[in-house]
Amino acid sequence: MFNAEFVSGMALLGAGIAMIAGLGPGIGQGIAASKGAEAVGRNPEAAGKIRSIMVLGIALAETTGIYSLIIALILIFLKA
Amino acid sequence: MFNAEFVSGMALLGAGIAMIAGLGPGIGQGIAASKGAEAVGRNPEAAGKIRSIMVLGIALAETTGIYSLIIALILIFLKA
Amino acid sequence: MFNAEFVSGMALLGAGIAMIAGLGPGIGQGIAASKGAEAVGRNPEAAGKIRSIMVLGIALAETTGIYSLIIALILIFLKA
Repeated sequence: MFNAEFVSGMALLGAGIAMIAGLGPGIGQGIAASKGAEAVGRNPEAAGKIRSIMVLGIALAETTGIYSLIIALILIFLKA
Repeated sequence: MFNAEFVSGMALLGAGIAMIAGLGPGIGQGIAASKGAEAVGRNPEAAGKIRSIMVLGIALAETTGIYSLIIALILIFLKA
Repeated sequence: MFNAEFVSGMALLGAGIAMIAGLGPGIGQGIAASKGAEAVGRNPEAAGKIRSIMVLGIALAETTGIYSLIIALILIFLKA
């Protein structure tokens, strides 16, 4: 019979599965960093401006990873 | 019947699944390193600036991998 | 009924799943090595600087693979 322990177990399993999403920002942010390095190599004097726009883009790409983290924490601490 | 051992088992399985996210930063950071190497080859005099922005981007790309590590450790030591 | 053997079994399964992450650094570091080789071919005089930044990037791309290794070892030796 399904009971409260089943619910807790599924919540914890779900928390782990949610974190898989973190692979996306990891890939995307790395690509952004790659083009940042390339751009600085081509125009070192623009390094400050290149860094600013790269960090902005990386910060925006981080959001879905944070969504997963929030959901995982909710599953773990409020539902398990 | 589902019991505390079921919950612990799911927590440990979830911890392992959460770590899958680490493949993302691995790919992204490698791409960043690839363009860093290319940029230094083209403009060795800007190596310092290229290294700075590459390391910054790689550090930011690491974050979701660390989120997964944190969730895995929580699942293992607080919930299993 | 779920028992201690179930917990151990899930811990060991989770340890194996955690290692899937290793495919990411493997791909990324290979891309970094590919561009490192290309850059040295184009500008052999900068080989030292290219090698330095490539090795730095590859070392940083290794980290999430090490996280997975640590979690797998914890699951195997502390929880199974």
